Amino acid sequence: MARGDERRVLLAHGGGGIMMRDLIAEVILRHIGNPTLARLEDAAVLAPQGSRLAFTTDAFVVKPIFFRGGDIGRLAVCGTVNDLAAMGARPLALSLAMVIEEGFRFADLERVLQSVAAAASEACVEVVTGDTKVVERGAADGLFLITAGIGAVPDGVFLSPTEVRPGDAVIASGTLGDHGIAILSERNGLEFETPVTSDVAPLADLAAHIVSAAPGGIHCMRDPTRGGAAAVLNEIASAAAVEIEIVESALPIRREVAAACDMLGFDPLYVPNEGRLIVFCGGEFAEACVARMRGHPLGPDAVLVGRARQGAPGRVVLRTRIGGSRIIAAPYGEQLPRIC
Amino acid sequence: MARGDERRVLLAHGGGGIMMRDLIAEVILRHIGNPTLARLEDAAVLAPQGSRLAFTTDAFVVKPIFFRGGDIGRLAVCGTVNDLAAMGARPLALSLAMVIEEGFRFADLERVLQSVAAAASEACVEVVTGDTKVVERGAADGLFLITAGIGAVPDGVFLSPTEVRPGDAVIASGTLGDHGIAILSERNGLEFETPVTSDVAPLADLAAHIVSAAPGGIHCMRDPTRGGAAAVLNEIASAAAVEIEIVESALPIRREVAAACDMLGFDPLYVPNEGRLIVFCGGEFAEACVARMRGHPLGPDAVLVGRARQGAPGRVVLRTRIGGSRIIAAPYGEQLPRIC
Repeated sequence: MARGDERRVLLAHGGGGIMMRDLIAEVILRHIGNPTLARLEDAAVLAPQGSRLAFTTDAFVVKPIFFRGGDIGRLAVCGTVNDLAAMGARPLALSLAMVIEEGFRFADLERVLQSVAAAASEACVEVVTGDTKVVERGAADGLFLITAGIGAVPDGVFLSPTEVRPGDAVIASGTLGDHGIAILSERNGLEFETPVTSDVAPLADLAAHIVSAAPGGIHCMRDPTRGGAAAVLNEIASAAAVEIEIVESALPIRREVAAACDMLGFDPLYVPNEGRLIVFCGGEFAEACVARMRGHPLGPDAVLVGRARQGAPGRVVLRTRIGGSRIIAAPYGEQLPRIC
Repeated sequence: MARGDERRVLLAHGGGGIMMRDLIAEVILRHIGNPTLARLEDAAVLAPQGSRLAFTTDAFVVKPIFFRGGDIGRLAVCGTVNDLAAMGARPLALSLAMVIEEGFRFADLERVLQSVAAAASEACVEVVTGDTKVVERGAADGLFLITAGIGAVPDGVFLSPTEVRPGDAVIASGTLGDHGIAILSERNGLEFETPVTSDVAPLADLAAHIVSAAPGGIHCMRDPTRGGAAAVLNEIASAAAVEIEIVESALPIRREVAAACDMLGFDPLYVPNEGRLIVFCGGEFAEACVARMRGHPLGPDAVLVGRARQGAPGRVVLRTRIGGSRIIAAPYGEQLPRIC
């Protein structure tokens, strides 16, 4: 298969024949190959240790597929790894399904697959099984990636919104809103003095680092993607039947993200992130947890942003800079389509 | 959420907010809910028995999404269950990701989800985790489903093309080409005296039934989807370095499928199936295996169709009705786009 920027994916590449096998062997395996995937069996066979498995899936339809700080390939790996990480699980294996629009450039496909490989390697996980479908022009928008992942949940780890108690600390692992603003900037051709870069990153190691710091003390973790931190906080406040108070002055928001949000009319609490964790831990573990996160390459800006309390179950309140308070409602519909 | 045929999916239903939660609670969980899925955690947590897991994924872009004998929902469950079944694995859990085009009818979504539920129940498996993305009009074609599945591989079961030996029998579990012709008929408005119905069915129970009949005697199983039986036979002939001879007069092909293939210029060996297994077993187990399959509701037409032999490694030969022989080449590109 000749390489070159002008080659494009054809319907025939999805047909289950020699052309598909060539695509798999010479493009897919070249970039993300490993002994398990290379068997090309109908399913990968694994021998996981431990008694509890986490299992998750995500579809990625981000537009554009390349953006400052990442691309759809990195996003697809990180999104699924982070869903496992949020459950306290160590990622064991990923699957990767691709829906490709006829005419998609090979060069772009290779770039995405390189990015899948790099992100998977960063997350210490492999793509072990996959599927490729090609649809005619106009039936999809370039490339959609769909990953699923399985992970091992360590004994004794049980993270869930229902574990959150009044008195729990709420910690953000880093700045909020970077991913969403990076995509919007790309999409709308916005330019800022300091360009905003997506935070997309695989969080399994950071999550394990936190959990091992305070076994039993960490009650719940979430990666705040669609709907941003506001969606996660509302979900947890409801599930745990607690009120959550967030302190506006403590929120880690980059100046350029805040400026973009002002200009575009967004609240950064509703803007998606792809490399951040919101962590709920027993209040007594808050300091240790923040310190632990700051000692990790993916958590230097970790900070305590609020607390759970009895109050009005299900409510999320922002204590504003001027001392007032404002309800952070659950997002309703779509603020930012195709952000991930 | 009001029900009615005229409600349509909006971009806002994919936004991670209350509208998405309503869609999940009132549409998705209503049809395919179970205690694990209903937790709506970032990942499902499972406690599988056994030491080896099979893991697989498939993307479904079939057009039209409703067809005689099934729909995209049934297809998505069966496709993934069958990939697990082909590895000898008992399905443990499925994930379901949906990419929905804005404007898709709620009524159709509900019909598809009902079908997912029915097929999953038939296969004794549950959808335990999922994701829903909505893209704008024109960015997808109605509905794409992407399933992943994990299954338990029983101790002692090791199925692989590399296990196939000269002398092995080749058995088809039923008639060939039904699914592809059913879709084509639907797509092209073809009408036959006896309409062709897709064979789409979950094969895990049939597969387990076969494997338990001759532990160690079953060497390899495949569900011949894209590229049909020809693709599977060529794949196995190459991997096992054997020649495979297929006997034309033994091939189970419905009269109406043969007629449609004649009319459309297709060879039924290249037409996809979604509820059939091609089984390779030691020659001495052939009769018992066929009998066992015929005793199962999904295998009444099971039949010995050929043998593996030394010959020319990687070659698949058809012994024709008139005593000649013809090479069955691996399919090259796309014969039937969006057939699954």
